[in-house]
Amino acid sequence: MIMKPNTIEPSHLLAALNWRRAIKVFDPDKLIPAETWAALEQALVMSASSYGLQPYRFIVVQDKKIRQQLLPHAWDQRQVVDASHLVIFAARTDVTEQEIDDYIQLIARVRGVSPDSLRNYREMMRDSLLADDFKPVARHWAARQAYIALGNLLTSAALLGVDACPMEGFVPAGFDSVLGLTEQGLTAVVMCALGYRSAADEYSKAAKVRFPASVLVKHV
Amino acid sequence: MIMKPNTIEPSHLLAALNWRRAIKVFDPDKLIPAETWAALEQALVMSASSYGLQPYRFIVVQDKKIRQQLLPHAWDQRQVVDASHLVIFAARTDVTEQEIDDYIQLIARVRGVSPDSLRNYREMMRDSLLADDFKPVARHWAARQAYIALGNLLTSAALLGVDACPMEGFVPAGFDSVLGLTEQGLTAVVMCALGYRSAADEYSKAAKVRFPASVLVKHV
Repeated sequence: MIMKPNTIEPSHLLAALNWRRAIKVFDPDKLIPAETWAALEQALVMSASSYGLQPYRFIVVQDKKIRQQLLPHAWDQRQVVDASHLVIFAARTDVTEQEIDDYIQLIARVRGVSPDSLRNYREMMRDSLLADDFKPVARHWAARQAYIALGNLLTSAALLGVDACPMEGFVPAGFDSVLGLTEQGLTAVVMCALGYRSAADEYSKAAKVRFPASVLVKHV
Repeated sequence: MIMKPNTIEPSHLLAALNWRRAIKVFDPDKLIPAETWAALEQALVMSASSYGLQPYRFIVVQDKKIRQQLLPHAWDQRQVVDASHLVIFAARTDVTEQEIDDYIQLIARVRGVSPDSLRNYREMMRDSLLADDFKPVARHWAARQAYIALGNLLTSAALLGVDACPMEGFVPAGFDSVLGLTEQGLTAVVMCALGYRSAADEYSKAAKVRFPASVLVKHV
């Protein structure tokens, strides 16, 4: 049984989330330390997903030449090249039998049980995810799972003092082509630049804009 | 300019994320303390969204009678009634002119600038979000933003020592009807039960199952 780790203070969490901004101007000379980055990658790996199926891959682009190739497909937004790290969230365009079977084998291996003991779970996934009426929504479902990972990454980064900018403003087909995603059954759904804000980033100095809790949260 | 808060150790973040499990059996007698819950709601409010538009509402259901009404639409999964708190993530089914204008007014108010100075931003949002070819994907786009909030909530809860169970297994039409969401231009896209795991929850004692980082994360 896993030990419950120390908790942080609610005020500490909120200070980090309030500090978090979508950074428009990164300091290109400030790199995320290796240990910190390793933790953020591990945070991505530990994200929650429907059935635990992890229907996505995370493409971490540090090669500046490839970032330059992505740039024109992202309306030349400088975060793409200036940030320390760039993560492309690539979601499955379809769910396959193979993917479900690989996952069942993985559970069996990690938990030391027989794949046969997971038969019901396998059937449940097959019945819902391979159904004809699921086909047209499979890519939307996979994208949603990738967005859980994005939300997790943004909060994780804020707590580690790393700046981030989630970005939907790019042409998926262009990214898929540069990164060779299509042939892997993947498509870029969102990306996140990470690093450290530049003192020149005026937006990050402005007040955070949110509808009041009384509008966003309804109690019943 | 906002102060950078204290950071937490990478190992601390990972311990919390590793402890996090999708809890199947909650202890119905353990309630989340008010201060902790207030922070989690505030974390939801501070979630990131595309353009900052927040195209969602969070429905917090504590009324056990309403939870009982939701239960049959959620395959009788006990988390719906047993958890301390239940959050329904309701996403916009459409983007409207009104929503964009309300948001522009909000920015102007919070930042003390004239709405007219935000004209370009308003046009940019109108051009993309009110376009004819965006109509069919608007609800998917809004749902994705809600999933960022879900990812944020799961990580925030783990750091505060609160258990959670993200759940897609419900009939949206049933939830929309019980909660009166349709007439508000909303639809339930995902939910999250929060509280504290029961000692009877066997799943939370099993090893976490993830594909290796070498499979999930690709470096280029």
